Amino acid sequence: MSVSIAHLGPPGTYAEAATLAYIRNLAVEKGSKSLLCPYPSIAQTLYSVAQEQVDLAVVPVENSIEGSVAITLDLLWQLDTLQIQQSLVLPIRHALLSRASTIETIKTIYSHPQALAQCQQWLEKFLPEVQPTPTNSTTEALHYLDKDHTAGAIASERAAELYNLPVLASAINDYPDNCTRFLVLGKQPSTSGSHTSLAFSTPANVPGALVKPLQVFAQRGINMSRIESRPTKRSLGEYFFFIDIEADASISSVKAALEELVSYTEILKIFGSYSVLSI
Amino acid sequence: MSVSIAHLGPPGTYAEAATLAYIRNLAVEKGSKSLLCPYPSIAQTLYSVAQEQVDLAVVPVENSIEGSVAITLDLLWQLDTLQIQQSLVLPIRHALLSRASTIETIKTIYSHPQALAQCQQWLEKFLPEVQPTPTNSTTEALHYLDKDHTAGAIASERAAELYNLPVLASAINDYPDNCTRFLVLGKQPSTSGSHTSLAFSTPANVPGALVKPLQVFAQRGINMSRIESRPTKRSLGEYFFFIDIEADASISSVKAALEELVSYTEILKIFGSYSVLSI
Repeated sequence: MSVSIAHLGPPGTYAEAATLAYIRNLAVEKGSKSLLCPYPSIAQTLYSVAQEQVDLAVVPVENSIEGSVAITLDLLWQLDTLQIQQSLVLPIRHALLSRASTIETIKTIYSHPQALAQCQQWLEKFLPEVQPTPTNSTTEALHYLDKDHTAGAIASERAAELYNLPVLASAINDYPDNCTRFLVLGKQPSTSGSHTSLAFSTPANVPGALVKPLQVFAQRGINMSRIESRPTKRSLGEYFFFIDIEADASISSVKAALEELVSYTEILKIFGSYSVLSI
Repeated sequence: MSVSIAHLGPPGTYAEAATLAYIRNLAVEKGSKSLLCPYPSIAQTLYSVAQEQVDLAVVPVENSIEGSVAITLDLLWQLDTLQIQQSLVLPIRHALLSRASTIETIKTIYSHPQALAQCQQWLEKFLPEVQPTPTNSTTEALHYLDKDHTAGAIASERAAELYNLPVLASAINDYPDNCTRFLVLGKQPSTSGSHTSLAFSTPANVPGALVKPLQVFAQRGINMSRIESRPTKRSLGEYFFFIDIEADASISSVKAALEELVSYTEILKIFGSYSVLSI
């Protein structure tokens, strides 16, 4: 049996590292083969699994410094058919890659906007004159290094090895505890695990409309580990809420909470229960 | 008297349009002069007012499609000395600018990541083969058009006029109700207006830690128009919450709510009361 897994490519991205760790650690059954399918954007990665071109997709959902990945939350809400199979927490260690002889000769710095943001203070300190230039992925930033020896890129040390590029500085992220959480998504129902994710919209402009849904969990002692609001895209000031709770949807108190939640929400979507793996 | 106002530049950005509307419509007293100061990033715009190099700063805080502007929320929380003087809602109408003879000859498309995201469906329909390339501002995207006649940029029609560039398509944003909300920030205390903004962190890992702060407003019938969580950057899963309420902090029920809030929060910051202007 072979399992195909979509992720943001090309090879060398953090999404690929998370996918490889997922394959190594569990879930893909022993003896089965796995096929990595890199896609050029997070949106295309998610469409590929929704349209069943692949079995699973691994996408970033949250970074400890930069916060939520909006496109992932928005498409989970819109696509409506995906279930969370697993959550993966990957430590992020950014390196400065370049064919320049020294850091001082670098004139341009390329990377994904999240990576640039995560190294902002380091860049201001060591390369204050250099204008950061965003790219679609950390790997895409590497394309500039061979033709231009005054260019630098922020990517992982694994990417440096993979593309045979020199590392001029390591661990340049401003906060050492930099982690990204990825979700493994598929169409199979996700029925057990330590965490459950859901999203809902509330009736508009009702004072306290968000309090009732949150009370449903609080009064049962169910901890909410995360809440994120995203615009519904209808009009400014209308949101849906994405919530993670630290409990399994199959236990009776959570079942009761989810049933009660229906009466306080407009649209309610449950993305399943899953476990969290730190890699 | 002259008032200096920082904004994301160069001229032609939506931030500049919001700043000009603010000057035209109110607040800057009649007879006083205003000086626009463009900065290369939102962060530098905010530092300039925090360090008193300018009197005011105009920065985007939220878009109806793409959601919050993370850097604005994070710096408001960190800088700790800024008060919201006014909120401005600006309709966003994106245009496709290019020196290409027809849309079909465009090979690359440049713009700020938020603008690219807001025109994603239009781009997939009319320019499916073209890879979008991010830039630091919508105006920066225009730099490519003169040297490369197969390049296109997404920016405002005002930018097209300002830089004398042809408009190949108008109103290309996927959602017609596309608005961005800007904040006018300064160091003067903001004591009255229809809206009040605040942010707080809660004691970690207490079930229902967020419910109590929200109840403080709900039980007084004070409507919360927005809640946004941002990572504290200490460790994954620790957040601060940014909240807008539809009430003036000087009325007694709001005063009482804010006093009660102190006991349910870890750190509490109040950014003042202000009015909302649609432009």
